[in-house]
Amino acid sequence: MAPIQALIFDVFGTVVDWRSSVVAELELVGKKSGAEKATADWARFAQEWRTGYMTKTRQIAAGASGPRNVDVMHREILDELLTRPEWSQIGELWDESTRQSLNLVWHRLNGWPDSVEGLKELKKHTIIATLSNGNVRLLTDMAKHAALPWDMIFSTELFDTFKPNPKAYLETMRHLAVQPHECFMVAAHIFDLRAAASLGMRTVYVPRPDEDVVVDVKSKAEGGEVDYVVKSFIELAQIIEQLNASG
Amino acid sequence: MAPIQALIFDVFGTVVDWRSSVVAELELVGKKSGAEKATADWARFAQEWRTGYMTKTRQIAAGASGPRNVDVMHREILDELLTRPEWSQIGELWDESTRQSLNLVWHRLNGWPDSVEGLKELKKHTIIATLSNGNVRLLTDMAKHAALPWDMIFSTELFDTFKPNPKAYLETMRHLAVQPHECFMVAAHIFDLRAAASLGMRTVYVPRPDEDVVVDVKSKAEGGEVDYVVKSFIELAQIIEQLNASG
Repeated sequence: MAPIQALIFDVFGTVVDWRSSVVAELELVGKKSGAEKATADWARFAQEWRTGYMTKTRQIAAGASGPRNVDVMHREILDELLTRPEWSQIGELWDESTRQSLNLVWHRLNGWPDSVEGLKELKKHTIIATLSNGNVRLLTDMAKHAALPWDMIFSTELFDTFKPNPKAYLETMRHLAVQPHECFMVAAHIFDLRAAASLGMRTVYVPRPDEDVVVDVKSKAEGGEVDYVVKSFIELAQIIEQLNASG
Repeated sequence: MAPIQALIFDVFGTVVDWRSSVVAELELVGKKSGAEKATADWARFAQEWRTGYMTKTRQIAAGASGPRNVDVMHREILDELLTRPEWSQIGELWDESTRQSLNLVWHRLNGWPDSVEGLKELKKHTIIATLSNGNVRLLTDMAKHAALPWDMIFSTELFDTFKPNPKAYLETMRHLAVQPHECFMVAAHIFDLRAAASLGMRTVYVPRPDEDVVVDVKSKAEGGEVDYVVKSFIELAQIIEQLNASG
């Protein structure tokens, strides 16, 4: 049996570039509705939407109440943003059907340039699975949209929690029938890897533009806290191939 | 939105030909261990293994206690078969490592001749997902082994029950965010389709050799109880393409 049986990927920011896709769709919807005059700062709107999600999922992961389905959560945050003074003018222009459609932009995100090629290569050597806070339908639609060749899609929605709650990682490992040392958690966010490492999982950090608050994550070999730091999934495929060939 | 958003497939017998794969591996393991002299009737052994699984999953679906993981269940049944008078000689020949390896034959089943081509075509038109009593790791390994291009793998293990318990179908639809009339359950077993239909799901029957106790299932158009009877997934792809084009 190969030493590394599964790679478990964070998705938003790690595999897909949410920022450019969301900003592009905001711009498009803004233009169509004449809202581009109300504000031009769609990058900030996108960041606030994402920040709302990060804050809320972290709170629920720690025990707070709230929706376990990210489509529902994204919609609640969108509606809240559109009541804020700086965006309420836009809120008046965007009706129910516009909001419903826009809310699903998170199902239509594109991979980073190395994502599809790297995942296809990795899939030859090991199981590649997601472990995302995104809901199942979102992740399924996204995989079709962005041609992400997952072997298995795990959503925390299946486990009624969010990362970084330990249950998310433990349930994923249980269903894959792998021990912590037999799998890697792959993420662009150190909080996700810290939670995985605390359960004995091995860790791969992939820095992505503007994704993390910690900017200088290092491998253990360089005195840091993660097992590997890689620039791309293609570099990761070389590492996995070597590990599984030598193991 | 397309009228049919998702096809949900039973797997053992419907997508993969468990019988020929399991019999072939039993023959191989039998020869290696010198057990072919003890019995030549591997087809009956395979059928008994399968029957044990069908009986046990149906009991647990109805509320009985027992393992929710099919790898565990398959192993319990295998060990029991090897204590029966007609096979106890083989039981003495097969050690722990032989049994462990043989038990995973259910991860290495091959598709019916139309399965891979049909699924690839169907995937262009709709979400294709499993809903199987097989555990997650089994279904993930099988998809890699047999090149089954699932968009999503649902295992009843995720929902702590087995088909035909209604929870299995309801949880699958909830996570796919589909209404019952927006999806088809596809199976070679009428009991599975009856459970799906009782919840409002649409149904496709695919007769497969020696798979069902009911041998003459008809479509509603022919006075029967299912929505469609198809000979192959390729025929099903033509139906879905027409439905989604006209809807």
